Amino acid sequence: MAQDEFAIIERYFSNIGKPAANIALGIGDDAAVVEVPSTEQLVVSVDTLVSGIHFPSDTSPADIAYKALAVNLSDLAAMGATPAWFLLALTLPQNDATWLHQFADGLRQAANTFKLQLIGGDTCHGHLSISIQIAGLAPSGRYVTRGHASPGDLILVTGELGNAALGLAHKQGEIDLPHNLQTQCLRALNRPQPRLELTPFLREYASAAIDISDGLQGDLAHLLKASDCGARIEQLALPVNAWIKQHSAYHYALAAGDDYEICCSVPEKYRAEIESWNRGHADCRLSIIGEITESGYFLGNGESLVDLDNAPGYRHFD
Amino acid sequence: MAQDEFAIIERYFSNIGKPAANIALGIGDDAAVVEVPSTEQLVVSVDTLVSGIHFPSDTSPADIAYKALAVNLSDLAAMGATPAWFLLALTLPQNDATWLHQFADGLRQAANTFKLQLIGGDTCHGHLSISIQIAGLAPSGRYVTRGHASPGDLILVTGELGNAALGLAHKQGEIDLPHNLQTQCLRALNRPQPRLELTPFLREYASAAIDISDGLQGDLAHLLKASDCGARIEQLALPVNAWIKQHSAYHYALAAGDDYEICCSVPEKYRAEIESWNRGHADCRLSIIGEITESGYFLGNGESLVDLDNAPGYRHFD
Repeated sequence: MAQDEFAIIERYFSNIGKPAANIALGIGDDAAVVEVPSTEQLVVSVDTLVSGIHFPSDTSPADIAYKALAVNLSDLAAMGATPAWFLLALTLPQNDATWLHQFADGLRQAANTFKLQLIGGDTCHGHLSISIQIAGLAPSGRYVTRGHASPGDLILVTGELGNAALGLAHKQGEIDLPHNLQTQCLRALNRPQPRLELTPFLREYASAAIDISDGLQGDLAHLLKASDCGARIEQLALPVNAWIKQHSAYHYALAAGDDYEICCSVPEKYRAEIESWNRGHADCRLSIIGEITESGYFLGNGESLVDLDNAPGYRHFD
Repeated sequence: MAQDEFAIIERYFSNIGKPAANIALGIGDDAAVVEVPSTEQLVVSVDTLVSGIHFPSDTSPADIAYKALAVNLSDLAAMGATPAWFLLALTLPQNDATWLHQFADGLRQAANTFKLQLIGGDTCHGHLSISIQIAGLAPSGRYVTRGHASPGDLILVTGELGNAALGLAHKQGEIDLPHNLQTQCLRALNRPQPRLELTPFLREYASAAIDISDGLQGDLAHLLKASDCGARIEQLALPVNAWIKQHSAYHYALAAGDDYEICCSVPEKYRAEIESWNRGHADCRLSIIGEITESGYFLGNGESLVDLDNAPGYRHFD
């Protein structure tokens, strides 16, 4: 079935997400037109997923679409922003109606779940890659950066770390997960959950935040660099599943990517607010994994202190 | 030289374009933060260039960068918007310092010329492609769409049509251009000029506008569809260079891509304003090439009327 670029956009992507009040002109012109309320700032980011690098090439089209939007939403979550709209640049090896239909379904599901609208995009021909530019809103001056952690702040992470990396290792035959963990870990790999529910907490209490896309160790290092601080984290405090504990395979939680949990620093005086959050949010529990320090970057593993400055996490060009 | 994704962004892309007053937080966090004045609307678009499809793979890195930004700026020009900022998603086959340095130079040159700032982006590994998400500003309600042309409106285009396609054909050895045209046509191919100077004219007089990226014939068809109108254009009125006239090679002007001129419709009562514009803008002359009609889409070629509805322009998936 021959379809051109314009027909693809019109047929599959003209109706993704609910029309929002602040979209003056949506998909279909040279550009879209949006309004930003005068009390808000716009928070914008872009992330590209390339087939075979950011997801296994046999990933289902719906999962690819869902993940492409979710990883971008995770950046908004880390900034304390509320999703507003997104643009899609889709590079396709071929014009496959079934694939496009399933991809659009996954995208629609994510857009509806997280309440944002696709307002523009383009398609072109090449190796499969999905680049999404996302925008959210935050009340002026209330966004959260990586740059304001202070010595003494507690270091927190949401959820469990390492599940997506375990799912990938299982899928690639490197490990054999017990059945009950397979579903959970493959879901973490294919359908990451951006932690947007944490937004009110971050705006109120966090001194700094970052999302964990390349592994806790490397991403926390970015936060420390931006804040000009050090940290000490405790291996036994890392929120990990039973398999990681049992096999002492903490590298999945420390150095592997694709978690999309939030790591944030919170002044120690808000300890009661953290406990209160955890009582109300069993699905988005915050674990205290360490403390911001003046300098240095160390992991306590129960026996000794590991210098994390000399143990790189995942990098795309290593 | 091994460099990771973060080092690439920091080294080459942290200082592209002048910091603007409305950028609260630029490159280097999970997202950037921008402000939109309450009297303005934000105009946003995304366009991807893939090596070997949108530019010959031997194009210089500086030209690739310049063109990637220019084609996006052309979308803003067609909307009557003023450039504000952009995001870059860069997919690279390898981490080549010389290439990156030259690419960043071309990007910086375009960003400085057109006065906008790079505020975020990502890099990843794969077949060379450049996806730019661009944002501009327009006074609320003053942006221009494809959708409000009316029968009787004049159809105008800026500059000359077909030069980029001629440049490509020459480069590929399909034709042999005279020397004086080679420079001009290769420049049109590699360094397209977004027609941002037309913005005040479009806001004041245009009923509809579109940029010509896929060829006049196809792009005007989009404008007609959005406006629910027809058109008749005259081949001999098309602004083309001497070679096209001499060889009667009007298909370069009609059906080939990459012109990035603006096609717009203007009510006939503004004929004097068009003439006045042309007296002051020799470098961005407007040519009247036809008229909006109730229905049908025809080209008068001096002898007969060609039905353009049945002669497709360039499409990515044909």
